[in-house]
Amino acid sequence: MSGMMMDYPLTLTHILERAAKLYPRKEIAGRMPAGMHRYSYADFHARVHRLAHVLQSLGLQPGDRVGTLCWNSHRHLELYFAVPCFGAVLHTLNLRLAADQLAYIIQHAGDKVIFVDASLVNLLEQIRADIPGVTRFVILDDEPIEKHTLDPAFDYEALLNLAPSHPFPWPVLDENTSCATCYTSGTTGHPKGVLYSHRALFLHSYGLTMADSFALSERDTILQIVPMFHANGWGVPFAAVMTGSRIVFTGRQLQPQDVAGLIQNEKPTFTAGVPTIWMTLYAYLESNPHDLSSLRTIVCAGSALPRGFIEQYEKKYGIRFMLAWGMTETTPIATVTSLKSTLLDLPEKDRWNLMARHGFPLAGVDIRIVDENGREQAWDGVTMGELQVRGPWITSGYYNDPRGAERGAQESFFEGWFRTGDVATIDPEGYIQIMDRTKDLVKSGGEWISSVDLENAIMAHPKVMEAAVISIPHPKWQERPLACVAPAPEHRNTITKEELLQFLSERVAKWWLPDDIVFIDAVPKTSVGKFNKRALRAQFEGYTLPG
Amino acid sequence: MSGMMMDYPLTLTHILERAAKLYPRKEIAGRMPAGMHRYSYADFHARVHRLAHVLQSLGLQPGDRVGTLCWNSHRHLELYFAVPCFGAVLHTLNLRLAADQLAYIIQHAGDKVIFVDASLVNLLEQIRADIPGVTRFVILDDEPIEKHTLDPAFDYEALLNLAPSHPFPWPVLDENTSCATCYTSGTTGHPKGVLYSHRALFLHSYGLTMADSFALSERDTILQIVPMFHANGWGVPFAAVMTGSRIVFTGRQLQPQDVAGLIQNEKPTFTAGVPTIWMTLYAYLESNPHDLSSLRTIVCAGSALPRGFIEQYEKKYGIRFMLAWGMTETTPIATVTSLKSTLLDLPEKDRWNLMARHGFPLAGVDIRIVDENGREQAWDGVTMGELQVRGPWITSGYYNDPRGAERGAQESFFEGWFRTGDVATIDPEGYIQIMDRTKDLVKSGGEWISSVDLENAIMAHPKVMEAAVISIPHPKWQERPLACVAPAPEHRNTITKEELLQFLSERVAKWWLPDDIVFIDAVPKTSVGKFNKRALRAQFEGYTLPG
Repeated sequence: MSGMMMDYPLTLTHILERAAKLYPRKEIAGRMPAGMHRYSYADFHARVHRLAHVLQSLGLQPGDRVGTLCWNSHRHLELYFAVPCFGAVLHTLNLRLAADQLAYIIQHAGDKVIFVDASLVNLLEQIRADIPGVTRFVILDDEPIEKHTLDPAFDYEALLNLAPSHPFPWPVLDENTSCATCYTSGTTGHPKGVLYSHRALFLHSYGLTMADSFALSERDTILQIVPMFHANGWGVPFAAVMTGSRIVFTGRQLQPQDVAGLIQNEKPTFTAGVPTIWMTLYAYLESNPHDLSSLRTIVCAGSALPRGFIEQYEKKYGIRFMLAWGMTETTPIATVTSLKSTLLDLPEKDRWNLMARHGFPLAGVDIRIVDENGREQAWDGVTMGELQVRGPWITSGYYNDPRGAERGAQESFFEGWFRTGDVATIDPEGYIQIMDRTKDLVKSGGEWISSVDLENAIMAHPKVMEAAVISIPHPKWQERPLACVAPAPEHRNTITKEELLQFLSERVAKWWLPDDIVFIDAVPKTSVGKFNKRALRAQFEGYTLPG
Repeated sequence: MSGMMMDYPLTLTHILERAAKLYPRKEIAGRMPAGMHRYSYADFHARVHRLAHVLQSLGLQPGDRVGTLCWNSHRHLELYFAVPCFGAVLHTLNLRLAADQLAYIIQHAGDKVIFVDASLVNLLEQIRADIPGVTRFVILDDEPIEKHTLDPAFDYEALLNLAPSHPFPWPVLDENTSCATCYTSGTTGHPKGVLYSHRALFLHSYGLTMADSFALSERDTILQIVPMFHANGWGVPFAAVMTGSRIVFTGRQLQPQDVAGLIQNEKPTFTAGVPTIWMTLYAYLESNPHDLSSLRTIVCAGSALPRGFIEQYEKKYGIRFMLAWGMTETTPIATVTSLKSTLLDLPEKDRWNLMARHGFPLAGVDIRIVDENGREQAWDGVTMGELQVRGPWITSGYYNDPRGAERGAQESFFEGWFRTGDVATIDPEGYIQIMDRTKDLVKSGGEWISSVDLENAIMAHPKVMEAAVISIPHPKWQERPLACVAPAPEHRNTITKEELLQFLSERVAKWWLPDDIVFIDAVPKTSVGKFNKRALRAQFEGYTLPG
């Protein structure tokens, strides 16, 4: 028996049009080279409609792919809505990708038109010959455009000026229509494309506005630090427009002085970003005090944030860190840390440990951990297993999977669950802790050592800036850990292997102690700022562990 | 191009199973005749599974209707989940309906089994002969059961004890499957049945957990005052389990001393109910102080709450009133009052006025007002029009509409929008104000007088307890208002028509002044506590207005 409720589709069109009606006076701001740009939701809405007319005039059809190679800005937000509401697919291109990877994903996705910031035009010039499928470029003038060879190229503002001012007649879309795509920044094999539906982004937005989650609200000012080319900017721009929040875009500068200045001047209540941002900001603030008092919450995800930072930000600045976990394949937010009322009385240390875990699943998301034989593991906080997830904003496959459909399905899915490739524990309260990537685990004598856990223990040492642990083949134990440690600059000459091992021996099991420690200048990073262990493994290939 | 996201259905099964995994230790409590009953979400979950086995053993099939005639209790919550997750349809019967109406809706819905509180068995005994479709009754022992004639009847706890203890294998349900039904308490014609889908109740739950809406959270203790037989208990029980909130059920007693006692003892942070509850509670507290400090928010809907109460509760008790609007046909919550950040600086009086409006639509819901010719009206805060709504939790039709499908569709829907029958204004910020029911408007000389507005103006007089305004035919103006006023008991002998008219003349337009005022003991009420103007109109049929 079917319910007699309206068949009303969950689309970004609803979010856009509702916001324009309810929040026309709210501000959208952002830092541009010429200074802060400010306009209202009403202005934004009018320009999104003009932009839809532009998409039509460029010959685009529903279902077509539209690339963006842009920093965070109001124009990028206009594309975030105009492209999906028009019925086309927004392909946010990661501007940190190597040229060959960028060309690959543009061709693989089939991008017809690319919107590119003037400051990034040179990235496309280099690969123009490799992306013949792109028929037009539109340049967003974030800075005076220099002589370039992109062809055919149009000016974003000029096109908007020419567009009709009457509302664009949005198509009525099925909620399962694709509206966006992102490619994984996988360190092995070709990048893989994830297609997001209107429904997924709509439901994900609900998820981020829940009081127990990010609690995004109309009263928030959101500082959009997460690059909008990275997994839908963690979905925050969509949720922000759903709630009519004031939005502040960072532009392209994300150095500590930029972030601190924007927080002090624009008074955001909420922001989100990867650990590196908050670790470097913390260090900067030590000698450059800023007023951070407007911030209620910082969401942190992407990799582990050492517990000490969570504690210090709260004690020193009154800012609550909220750790989250997700992937490009999960839209991306799947789990969020929120301290349950039943756990408020925990001893302080246990409370901080809990806050440093990666939270429990949002309503709508199922999680489980399974062993190598596909058996579900206990939620005991100790047993590790591959984390698998399921839900309405989790991918069910990759677009034209480069591994082939069958192999892709086998490697990435199991019994209808998405295999994340992350190894985690789940405690009896449902809080997950990401221990490692499946492939980064150190498999020592049949037991698993979490490289991430070991790294966090090392990074807790005051003389250490960064540390990455990789596995080295071992004749007896199969694999043993090697720690690659980047000391803080001022301790570069004084830090010793012995003091680190002594420090660790008080914190981890004896058999977890690295067999060797090497000092490096910095841990190599991927295009999205994560530790690039693939590069480290290449660097230390053939390394011989002592004795 | 279809999105490649998982086809994961939004069902109550997900809400139930997730809650059991994440919040097993949270409490569900409720007042029973023998005292407070308390158990955990884990207990609740185990009993819901047992109950599903019971449903199967009673011969029920997916799609079957299962009636409940119950007060608010943990057992009713068990039915709220077991019946939908089993794939059947929960039909919550309004225990205040007249016997003939109760029999009508049971037969119309096709209820096969009815779960009934022992204290309500007599209501079914009276109509047993009129509900031949019901094959079995299950009695919930909220009090010792006396000799009765219901047949065949089983005992709820006995059936649960007999049920297998292994988990019930929930069916995989399409999210559009019907899971619940409520009948409107319409004062004209037969009651009409609304069918809710799993999807609608799931999305509605997201709506209630949003930070800008009820903001229901795991940290809340929710006092469930709204009868669970009234429009899904306003959807709060479903949202409460989604967030793992502590829940406290009122049982059957809703007198001011009961409500005040429960608040003081159980320390809820959130509750909801119709205006009468809060108006009588306020009066009671004046002479019987209680500790209400745990409450952060009271949601009020169902009819208008005079502004003074909103102001006094906040000033005296620090409790924020949140007005909402909805109907059985809208699951029910469609709009919620939340003060936008841009309006925080309003002069105090304007702020209270805004808080006394009925809010703006939740994300997912569209609203508009239209005139008698179907033309959309401006959002200027002045122009009245029929309120129409659209969204994923708005009904698209009635079950076997007693008016016939064609006439029903014509009377209740227009261009894909649901016609609410409420007359409202919408201000430029999107806040609606319900002015009247279409049929209760006083149409005087081609202009509309809102009977509700006039009533509120009269009820602001300190000597008035309640007032209802109805229209009386008039030879010149077509209709003119008659005010039926129930004075506060202590002013029954001193109140005069003249002082009321004087009071009103300072507050409403001259042509709105009632042509006459009659004093009555109390305004007659419907089964859900609303003013029954139909009864009043019958009482004053043929009334002659003075000169």
